[in-house]
Amino acid sequence: MKLQGKAVIAQGGGPTAVINQSLVGAVLESRKFPQITRVYGALNGVAGIINENFLDLSQETSENLELVAKTPSSALLSTRDKPDAAYCKKIFNVFKAHDIRYFFYIGGNDSADTVRIVNEEAKLSDYELRAIHVPKTIDNDLTVTDHTPGYGSAARFVAQAFMGLNLDNKALPGVHIGVVMGRHAGFLTAASSVAQKYSGDGPHLIYLPERPFKVEDFLGDVKDVYDRYGRCIIAVSEGIQDEKGEPIVTRLLEREEDEHGNVQLSGTGALGDLLARYVKEKLEIQRVRADTFGYLQRSFAGCVSDVDQQEARMVGKKAVQFAVERNVDGSVTIHRTGEYSVDYKLTPLEEVAAKTKLMPAEFINDQGNHVTDAFKQYVTPLLGSDLPGIGLLKAPQLEKMLKV
Amino acid sequence: MKLQGKAVIAQGGGPTAVINQSLVGAVLESRKFPQITRVYGALNGVAGIINENFLDLSQETSENLELVAKTPSSALLSTRDKPDAAYCKKIFNVFKAHDIRYFFYIGGNDSADTVRIVNEEAKLSDYELRAIHVPKTIDNDLTVTDHTPGYGSAARFVAQAFMGLNLDNKALPGVHIGVVMGRHAGFLTAASSVAQKYSGDGPHLIYLPERPFKVEDFLGDVKDVYDRYGRCIIAVSEGIQDEKGEPIVTRLLEREEDEHGNVQLSGTGALGDLLARYVKEKLEIQRVRADTFGYLQRSFAGCVSDVDQQEARMVGKKAVQFAVERNVDGSVTIHRTGEYSVDYKLTPLEEVAAKTKLMPAEFINDQGNHVTDAFKQYVTPLLGSDLPGIGLLKAPQLEKMLKV
Repeated sequence: MKLQGKAVIAQGGGPTAVINQSLVGAVLESRKFPQITRVYGALNGVAGIINENFLDLSQETSENLELVAKTPSSALLSTRDKPDAAYCKKIFNVFKAHDIRYFFYIGGNDSADTVRIVNEEAKLSDYELRAIHVPKTIDNDLTVTDHTPGYGSAARFVAQAFMGLNLDNKALPGVHIGVVMGRHAGFLTAASSVAQKYSGDGPHLIYLPERPFKVEDFLGDVKDVYDRYGRCIIAVSEGIQDEKGEPIVTRLLEREEDEHGNVQLSGTGALGDLLARYVKEKLEIQRVRADTFGYLQRSFAGCVSDVDQQEARMVGKKAVQFAVERNVDGSVTIHRTGEYSVDYKLTPLEEVAAKTKLMPAEFINDQGNHVTDAFKQYVTPLLGSDLPGIGLLKAPQLEKMLKV
Repeated sequence: MKLQGKAVIAQGGGPTAVINQSLVGAVLESRKFPQITRVYGALNGVAGIINENFLDLSQETSENLELVAKTPSSALLSTRDKPDAAYCKKIFNVFKAHDIRYFFYIGGNDSADTVRIVNEEAKLSDYELRAIHVPKTIDNDLTVTDHTPGYGSAARFVAQAFMGLNLDNKALPGVHIGVVMGRHAGFLTAASSVAQKYSGDGPHLIYLPERPFKVEDFLGDVKDVYDRYGRCIIAVSEGIQDEKGEPIVTRLLEREEDEHGNVQLSGTGALGDLLARYVKEKLEIQRVRADTFGYLQRSFAGCVSDVDQQEARMVGKKAVQFAVERNVDGSVTIHRTGEYSVDYKLTPLEEVAAKTKLMPAEFINDQGNHVTDAFKQYVTPLLGSDLPGIGLLKAPQLEKMLKV
C-alpha cells in the first residue's frame, strides 16, 4: 500500500532561470497520483512550512502553471533558513496537522541538507514521510549529479555576455574584465570559454577559485595577451582566492571589514575594480574596464537553455515518481549517458547534502588560467540549442594607393 | 546626371546590438545603384580612411552580410577620433586617390559632427561628395529623430534585466540597485520601467541625470518603499549629478582623482557600491546589493528588439537612397507617424551634429524619482515583439490550522 497524504513543495536558496520548471513539473506530476490527495506550495521555503504559509496549488490551472514555469526566479519565494532539530519539530507539527506525507524541496546543497535533517528527524519521530531533494543551482557544485538544473541557463547567459564583450572590445580595444558568480566552484566562470569562436577571440584568460590567484602571474598573463592582440578579455570568478585561501576581494575591503563585518562577493563591483586598478597601474594600459555580471546571471528574463528547461522539468517530475513508486528518500541526480542524453536517478541524501563539487583537474589547463577542451565538450550541450551566431566580414583588404 | 564614384562606409563611437544592420543595409542598397561603382568599408571609422584600411565590401556575399547584420558590435570596428581640418585634408587625399564620392558614417552626435566637418571641408576644397550620417546610439540622445537605432535593443536588455531582478528580489528581499548607462540622457535608465507588470513590481524608484540627485531625498524615497513593500528595486543612471552638475560618482573617487586623472563612469562598480553603502549605513538595511550593467547593455549577444533591427536596416538603406536620389548631405532621422509606424527623413547636419537630446519634462514624474505613463507609451513599441512573459502563482492561500 502506497503512502497516502498531501504533498508540500518549496524552493530554497538562490533563484535560477528554470527553478519554476521543477516546481511545475512536481505539481503536475503530483496531481496524477491518487495517493497524493492535495498539493501545497510553501511560501519562502521551510519558513513557509513552520508559519503555515501555504498556497493550494491544486487550484492552479495548468495554463497558468506553464506561464510560471517559463518565469525566472522562485515563484514560491525563497529563504536562507537552515532548520535544526527544534525547527524540524515545528515542521512535523505542521505536517501532522495538514496530513502532509510528501515533501519536495528544490534547492542546492544546503537545501539537500535540510531535506536530510527533516528526513532523519521524521524517522526519529516515527512520522512516515517521503522527503525528496530536487536539485538546482547556477553554481553546478552538487556532487553525484553530472550537472545541476539552473547551471545551463546561467552558463548560456555568461557565454552570450562574453560573445558580446569580445566583439565590443575588438571594436574599441583595451582590457576588459568580466566578474562571474561562483564562490567555490568555477563552473559558471568557465562557461565563458564557449564564447571563443574565431582565432583571437576572448576570453583569453579565465581565473577560477579552484586555482590560487597570484597577482604577479595574472599581470604577466595579461601583458602577454595584450602584447599579442592589442587587447585582452578576462573572465574572473568572484571567489578567486590567494594561496592561503583568502578571497582576493578582501584585499580591497580590508580597511572596511571592521566597519561592515563580512565580505560580500556578489552585488558589488569591488573585485572587478580592484583588478582593473592593478592592470592600469602596473601595466600602464589606459583603457581598462570591469563588468560584474551580478544577479543578472541567475535572473535575466529571456535568456534560457532549452535543455536546462527540459531537465529542470524532469527532475521535478522524477522526484514525485520516485517518492510515490519507491519507498525511499533521496536526491534526484542527472547522469549523462551519451552525446547528449541523460538518465535520472535517486541518490541517498548523505551523498549530496552539504557537499560541494569543484571543477575537476582535467577541466583546467596547466597554467591555471583557462579551461581545457574536455570542459568545453562537457558544457556545450548544457547551453541548449540556437546560441546566437557570430558573423564576421570576410572581404579582402584593398591595396593602399597612397604612401601616408 | 547623378554623382558617380565609390562609396565608403564606416562606424564610429560605441557599438550597439544593431549597428551592423545599418552597415549591411547601406552595403546592399549601394550595390543596387550603378553610379556607386564599388563599396568600401573603412576599418576603425575615420582612422581607417586616412590609413587606407579598406575592405572591399563588394566582395561580400549577401549570405555572409546577413550573418554579420545579426551580430552585435561594429563589424568594421570603431574609433573615438574626431577630425579637424588637417585630418579632413588627409581624408580628401584618400577619397580623391580612390575616387570615393559617397561617405556613410554610422554613429552618434560626435559622428554626425564628423560628417558635418568633412562635408564643409569638401565644399571648401571643391570636392564633390555626398556625406550622410546614419544614426545609432544606445543613449537615444540625438536631436530631431524620434529615437535612435540601438536604443530599442539596449532598452530591451535593461527591461529584461529588471524583470529578472524584480523577481529575484521578491524571492530574497532587500534593496537592489541597478546602474544603467547614460552620461547625460536618462532614456536607457527610464526603460527599466517596462519591467513593472504587476502591482508592487520594481523598479520602484528611477533616478535620471536630468534631475539633480539629492542623497537625502534618495534615502527618504528608499525608506518609504522599503517600509511599504519590505524591499526596494532602484534604477540609477550612471550619470546622475548633484545640484551643481557634479557627477555623484566623483564623491567616491575624489580621493583618487589626482592619481587616476579622469572620472570613468562605465566599466566600474563604483557608483552602485557608493549608493549601496549609503543605504546600508543610513537606513540600516542589511541586504543591499548593487549591479552595474556595464557593457552588456550594448553588446549582449541574443537580446535584440526586432523593431530596432528593422529600423537600423532601414536607416542604412535610406542613407544610400537619399545620397543617390537627392543632391544633399544630411542625417537620416526617424519620425513617428502612428501607433506604431515611422517615416524616414533627411535632416540638415547642423541640426543634429554635436547636439544632445535629454528626456523631456513630460517623461519624468514630479518628484524626479520615476517616469510617467507618457514615457512608457513612448518606449514600449521600441522594445519589439515577444518580450518574455512573467507568470505568477494565483492559487488561494490556505487557512492556518495551528496557532503558532
